[in-house]
Amino acid sequence: MTINLNPPRGFRDLYPPEKQIQEYIFDKLKNTANLFGFSFYDGPILENIAIYLDKTSKELIQRQTFSVKTKNETLIMRPEMTPSLARMIANKTGQLNFPLKLFNLGLRFRYEAPQKGREREFYQADFDILGSDSIISDAEIINTAVKIFTSFGATEKDFVLYINSRQEMEKNLLKLGFSKKIYKQLLEIIDKQDKVSNDSFIKSLLSVDNNKQRVKKLVNFLFSTRQEVSSYFVELFSILKKLKIDKYCQVNYNIVRGLDYYTGLVFEIKQKGPFQLKRALLGGGRYDNLISNFNPKNNIQGVGFAASDVAIWEFLQTNKLLPNTFPAKTKVLATIFDPTLIDTSIKIVNLLRKNNISAEFYLDLKKLDKQLKYADKKGIPYVIIIGPEEAKSKVYKLKNMKTGEQKTFDEKKLIEFLISN
Amino acid sequence: MTINLNPPRGFRDLYPPEKQIQEYIFDKLKNTANLFGFSFYDGPILENIAIYLDKTSKELIQRQTFSVKTKNETLIMRPEMTPSLARMIANKTGQLNFPLKLFNLGLRFRYEAPQKGREREFYQADFDILGSDSIISDAEIINTAVKIFTSFGATEKDFVLYINSRQEMEKNLLKLGFSKKIYKQLLEIIDKQDKVSNDSFIKSLLSVDNNKQRVKKLVNFLFSTRQEVSSYFVELFSILKKLKIDKYCQVNYNIVRGLDYYTGLVFEIKQKGPFQLKRALLGGGRYDNLISNFNPKNNIQGVGFAASDVAIWEFLQTNKLLPNTFPAKTKVLATIFDPTLIDTSIKIVNLLRKNNISAEFYLDLKKLDKQLKYADKKGIPYVIIIGPEEAKSKVYKLKNMKTGEQKTFDEKKLIEFLISN
Repeated sequence: MTINLNPPRGFRDLYPPEKQIQEYIFDKLKNTANLFGFSFYDGPILENIAIYLDKTSKELIQRQTFSVKTKNETLIMRPEMTPSLARMIANKTGQLNFPLKLFNLGLRFRYEAPQKGREREFYQADFDILGSDSIISDAEIINTAVKIFTSFGATEKDFVLYINSRQEMEKNLLKLGFSKKIYKQLLEIIDKQDKVSNDSFIKSLLSVDNNKQRVKKLVNFLFSTRQEVSSYFVELFSILKKLKIDKYCQVNYNIVRGLDYYTGLVFEIKQKGPFQLKRALLGGGRYDNLISNFNPKNNIQGVGFAASDVAIWEFLQTNKLLPNTFPAKTKVLATIFDPTLIDTSIKIVNLLRKNNISAEFYLDLKKLDKQLKYADKKGIPYVIIIGPEEAKSKVYKLKNMKTGEQKTFDEKKLIEFLISN
Repeated sequence: MTINLNPPRGFRDLYPPEKQIQEYIFDKLKNTANLFGFSFYDGPILENIAIYLDKTSKELIQRQTFSVKTKNETLIMRPEMTPSLARMIANKTGQLNFPLKLFNLGLRFRYEAPQKGREREFYQADFDILGSDSIISDAEIINTAVKIFTSFGATEKDFVLYINSRQEMEKNLLKLGFSKKIYKQLLEIIDKQDKVSNDSFIKSLLSVDNNKQRVKKLVNFLFSTRQEVSSYFVELFSILKKLKIDKYCQVNYNIVRGLDYYTGLVFEIKQKGPFQLKRALLGGGRYDNLISNFNPKNNIQGVGFAASDVAIWEFLQTNKLLPNTFPAKTKVLATIFDPTLIDTSIKIVNLLRKNNISAEFYLDLKKLDKQLKYADKKGIPYVIIIGPEEAKSKVYKLKNMKTGEQKTFDEKKLIEFLISN
């Protein structure tokens, strides 16, 4: 039987060069979490389907999940983290120190058609603030989202953070004369508008409220009004200004987000520039009723967002924000001249590692030029050459692989040099 | 409907205190990988079942996996990494720089009964050396395994690394007069001996070869002979001695490992001490035919091992090798005295973060003692108290939460103090 050597569709093989890029992205995300005081947590990859029902988007759960049947239950591969987080918070009533700032970096799975910036398996970084309904928390979560992108060197030319509020939207729909019963349907249609033509967008709106004038007013409102017209936005932007991030932010009534559990603030980051991803780079909002849904005794508010590594990666690549090269982790290769000199190579490498200097000895008995080629291809900056004389004298030749320069050192000097270079 | 707030059986919720321990374990594993020159890689969580058939243990694939049915295929949640690694190496014929030292830290899934040191979802660290069949590679992989445990502060009193070889075992079975046809069955029975009584172990052996004398000889060989009797072990131990790790290692003919693809060296680390885990803390071996199974043109040898975070965690806990406390990531909390002073708190926190000092402002307008209690519970070592006077004078009070001591600083001095303390 011939085995297909590729990963399943929508899944990724990350060889060292690609994994290095992913680790670069992960490190930035973790650094932002640490700098802003978010504590790391994690939950299971498989969850009972019950935690998603009536919370997450129906489409997501019914059609876009991978499910696993065991003897006793049907489990879902988590498509997002927030329901797991809500379950975990609800399960520790009275045992947590609020406000709680939480960070998760973990795998999510969606059974969707893979495309640019979207895979079936991807990592998401989730940042959440639990147990605070203050506008300061809304501002801090937006601040964190902006910091992620500026930490990669992105500027206001590269991205914009759009802000809206479900509450403000409902006030506006009321003002425009729509019936409260159809709010949810209207928001769902607005959420999907960028996937359809203008005409079919208007047709969809008319299908839930046949009043053409009202629908026209709504469309005008969505497309033209982008100023701060509510006291909530005015206050929020005054804090964003103090945080010096108002230049990245913009009110946008078209942003309503697809998940059912949002109750107030919703926001997303979109790429700017010629190769713009349709999909949001990051999205989130306030979900004040989600945890009490799990445990009515536990009325804990939440606000947070999630960003996928696949979308960030695509963004960094198209906006030329990825480093050109990553330094090799190994600093020194000790060559093995011949079988009798293995001892010395091993001894030197042991010594270097003891001093926390990343080092390798070559693993086979091959010619010196093959060993140097290995170091060169792996990007190892220094090679120690140990011949019979060096082994005897304990004075070693260190070759700088970039310049070709060779220096000799005794053991003590060698370590000093490698620590400071 | 009441929702079960616990994770599925065999899956873990990791709240910040537990996640901190897991991150501590992950950091040690990653540091060892970097220090020894292993490059990070990753593959998908879901794999086609074909990559496991006739390679991994049958038991593992038939009964102990989670499987996922999509429209077009049946995928397996990876129970181990080596088959994925072999697939990936086979898929890049001629494009990789050998010998290749690879490291993966990722999730694995096994549908087994959860018990001490074993969950259905767990992380495994996989270390592999590809493209070298030298005994130096065997020694280096053992060296890496030992380093993981010594990096946690474990000594030869805490653990032992048992070494055997499938090749040597076959030679010995031949010497004892067993038919080549039943080698595999015999190794399978030996692999499972610690799960059954002595009597039923011997019965199982007799069921494949009815010669009582031969079986008796085999049992004597397994239980009594632990010295180095082969040239392979003699040479291997001479390198382990040079690496200064021979004191952790011991030949043990009972160790054959359960996976079908091993061809030479097999080894595992076992806990020592009164609360010893039955399960191995780490296991691995040489698999020289696995990659050519995927692609006959690609004859790449391999040697490696895997260690699970759950087993390491259990080991560290019972052998008292876990740190008692972990420092908080946040260094400073800026309190918010009243709404008019939010600006100053935000400004100070912005300034600290800009200087790479982890800082938070309190997210609600609550009494000062509540804010101090938050810092105390989270373990934040410093609190900045900003009243109306401090906001005016720009000279701030910094409170050391452990000693209660208060010092005053202007902005510049504050940053200098926090960077150096």
